[in-house]
Amino acid sequence: MSIASSTRVERLAAAMAHVQRLVDSPIFARRGAAGVADFMVGNPQEMPLPDLVEVLHRNLEPKDKNWFAYKLNEPEARIPVARSLTALTGLDWDPEDVFMTNAGFGALTVTLRAITEPGDEVIYLSPPWFFYELLIAGADAVPVRLNLEPPAFDLDPDAIAAAITPRTRGVIVNSPHNPSGRVYPIEALSRLAVVLGEASRRNERTVHLIADEPYRRILFDGIRYRSAAEVYPGTIITYSYGKVLLSPGQRLGYIAVPPTSPERAALRRSIELFQWATGYAFADSLMQHSTADLEHVSIDIPRMQARRDRLVGALRAMGYQTTNPEGTFYILVRCPTDDDQAFAERLASEDVLVLPGTIVELPGWMRLSLTASDEMVEQALPVFQRAFAEAR
Amino acid sequence: MSIASSTRVERLAAAMAHVQRLVDSPIFARRGAAGVADFMVGNPQEMPLPDLVEVLHRNLEPKDKNWFAYKLNEPEARIPVARSLTALTGLDWDPEDVFMTNAGFGALTVTLRAITEPGDEVIYLSPPWFFYELLIAGADAVPVRLNLEPPAFDLDPDAIAAAITPRTRGVIVNSPHNPSGRVYPIEALSRLAVVLGEASRRNERTVHLIADEPYRRILFDGIRYRSAAEVYPGTIITYSYGKVLLSPGQRLGYIAVPPTSPERAALRRSIELFQWATGYAFADSLMQHSTADLEHVSIDIPRMQARRDRLVGALRAMGYQTTNPEGTFYILVRCPTDDDQAFAERLASEDVLVLPGTIVELPGWMRLSLTASDEMVEQALPVFQRAFAEAR
Repeated sequence: MSIASSTRVERLAAAMAHVQRLVDSPIFARRGAAGVADFMVGNPQEMPLPDLVEVLHRNLEPKDKNWFAYKLNEPEARIPVARSLTALTGLDWDPEDVFMTNAGFGALTVTLRAITEPGDEVIYLSPPWFFYELLIAGADAVPVRLNLEPPAFDLDPDAIAAAITPRTRGVIVNSPHNPSGRVYPIEALSRLAVVLGEASRRNERTVHLIADEPYRRILFDGIRYRSAAEVYPGTIITYSYGKVLLSPGQRLGYIAVPPTSPERAALRRSIELFQWATGYAFADSLMQHSTADLEHVSIDIPRMQARRDRLVGALRAMGYQTTNPEGTFYILVRCPTDDDQAFAERLASEDVLVLPGTIVELPGWMRLSLTASDEMVEQALPVFQRAFAEAR
Repeated sequence: MSIASSTRVERLAAAMAHVQRLVDSPIFARRGAAGVADFMVGNPQEMPLPDLVEVLHRNLEPKDKNWFAYKLNEPEARIPVARSLTALTGLDWDPEDVFMTNAGFGALTVTLRAITEPGDEVIYLSPPWFFYELLIAGADAVPVRLNLEPPAFDLDPDAIAAAITPRTRGVIVNSPHNPSGRVYPIEALSRLAVVLGEASRRNERTVHLIADEPYRRILFDGIRYRSAAEVYPGTIITYSYGKVLLSPGQRLGYIAVPPTSPERAALRRSIELFQWATGYAFADSLMQHSTADLEHVSIDIPRMQARRDRLVGALRAMGYQTTNPEGTFYILVRCPTDDDQAFAERLASEDVLVLPGTIVELPGWMRLSLTASDEMVEQALPVFQRAFAEAR
C-alpha cells in the first residue's frame, strides 16, 4: 500500500536531496534566532519595503466586480512588462508574448514543459540555483550539468557547444548569476547565440536559451544590463519580482518571448496550455493589478553595493579569496579548509550562518547573502577573522 | 523548428479542447458587455465582499521581517484549517497533514502527481468540472470517464467498482457537485468506501478518494455537510476558497489528509515534493496570513438560495426540466431542443448568456450560475419564457 518506492517520487526526491540536506542541517534550524548574523539564503533580514506595502494596499481596493475574478495573462500587467522589456533591449516586445506567472518557479516550470518532450535534454550551469535540476526532471526532461570554472565562472560557449546533443532543447543561463554574481557581457552571449544557432540548424529544432533573469535589476557599479534576447531569437526570458522587492512569498513573475522569435505562435499556445496544466501557473489578481507599479519599486541597491564593498574589502584583507559580484545578492568566499560544511559549522558556533558551497555543487566555498543587515556584517567580521586564523 | 506537433502538447491540448471551444465561442466574448444577463461561469457579477477586502488589507500590514518571505505550508494557516476540519468531521486532524496551495488547481495537480505513476488511471465523474481531464493527463495518468445519470446524477458505487482496474489509483468525487448541485449523502459515500477498500486490498495499493470540496460551504436548505474523509481513510480532500469568497483570482486552497490515513508519512513526503516540483504550488504570503480570518468569511448563502428558488420556480412554471441544487452555484436546465449550442445562441440573441451543456459533457442541457445578480434573473426570465415557447 506504499507509494514510497514509486519511481517518479524517488527520481524527484533525488533532485531535491541537496535542498533536503540543507533544510535538515543544524545550521539551517538556527535561522531567525536572536543574535544570529544570517547570510544563509536570500530572505529579508529587515522589514518589507514600505513602497511595496503601499502599492499592494492601493491595488487591493476593488475598482470593478472582476477585481478578484479568475485572471489569466492580463493586459494591465503584460503591457507595462512589454514596455520595460522594450526599453531594456531595444526590441519591440508584444504584450501577447508576456505570460504572467506565480513567480520564477512557475515561469521556469511552464517554460521547461513548453519546450520539451519527455527524454529531451536541458543544460544548466553549475554552481546553479537550487531548483534547476528538480524543475527539469519534473518536466520529464533530462538535466545535463555543465560546470562554470571558478574563480571567474565565465560563460564558455565552446563547452556548451560540446554538451549539446540531438536531444538538447534548452540551455538555462542565469545572469546575473546566482551564486557567483557574474553578469555575462553581451559579447559572451553573442558567441553563445552563434553556438545555439548552429546547433538548432543541425538539430532541425530550436535549442532555446532560457534567460533566467530574476536578479536583472540588482546590479552594481553602474553596469547596464544586456539580455540574451538582444542577440538570440530562440531566447525565452524567465523573471521574478521576488528578488528586487525582497518579497519571494508574494508570487509574481513572467515568461517573455522576444519579437524576433520565429516560433511565437507555437510558444504562445504551448506556454498558455502549460500554465493551465501546471496547476494554474498564473499570477494572482492583486499581483497583476500591482505589476505596473512594482516595475518602479526596488530594494536600495546603492546600500547593498556599499555592503558588498565592506564585506569583500574586509574579507580580502583577512586573507580570504572572494568574488566581487557585479550583481545578485551573493558573494562567494573560498573556505580556508576543504570542508565547507565543517567551516560553516565553525562559523555557526559563533552565530554566523552561511551557505556551505556543497549545497550549490561548489565544495570548498561558501555563499554569503547581502540581504543580511549592516549590523549583521559588523557582528560577523571578527568571527570570519578568528575562523580564518584558526584554519591557517 | 516547430513544437506544434509535439506529443505532450497535443495530448494536453485535446484535454483542453472543450474549454477552448467555449473561450472561442461568440457567446463567451459577450460576457461583461453592458445589458447582458450573465449566467455562464461562476465569476462574480457584483462587487467583491467588503469583509474579504478588509481581511486582506489587515493581513497585508507587515508584522515581522519575514512577512513576505518564502512561505511553505505555514502553521498560521494549517492550524485553523485543521481545526475547521476537526469541527466538520469529528476526526482529530493534524496540521502537519494540511498543505496550503495556490487554490484548487494547485491542490488537484499536486495530489494527482503525488498518488500516481505515469500510466496509472484516475476515474472522474461526468458531467465534470472543466479541468479534471487536463490535470489527470498533465500528471501523465490516464483519465477514465464515468457518467452520472441525469436527472438525479446519483453517485453509483457499483458503476465505480466496475470501472476500477489494477492501475486505478484514485477516484475524484466532487461534492457538492458542479454542475448538478448534488450533495452526496454519507450513506452513498459509505458504500463507495466499501468498494474502494475492497479494490485497494485487491490491488495491494490504495485507491484514493479525492474529495474535491470547493463548494462545501455553499449549501442550501440547512443541509449539514458530510465529508468522505469521515468514512474512508484513503480520502484526500482538495479545497479552494475561491468559491465561497467569490475571489478565484486570489489563489488559496489546500490538500488535507485525514488522521485515519495509514499513509500519512508517505503522502506528506510526496505532496510536499510535488508542491516544489509543480512550480511552487504553495499559497502566497498574504493568503496564508489571511487564512484564519477567511475561514469565517462567506458570500451571502441565504440570498443565493432565494435566487435559486426564484429561478427554479419560474423555469419549472414555464415548463423547463431543472435540477434543484442542494449546493454549489449551479442549476442544470434541460433545453427544449436537443441542440444546446443553438439554444444558448438563441438566448444570447436576447442578451442572456448560459453555458451549453456540451462543454461539460452533457449535451441537451445548459448550466446557469447563481452568481448572476437578482436583476439579471428578472431580466432573463421573459427571455427564457419566449425561447421555450418558440421551441415547442
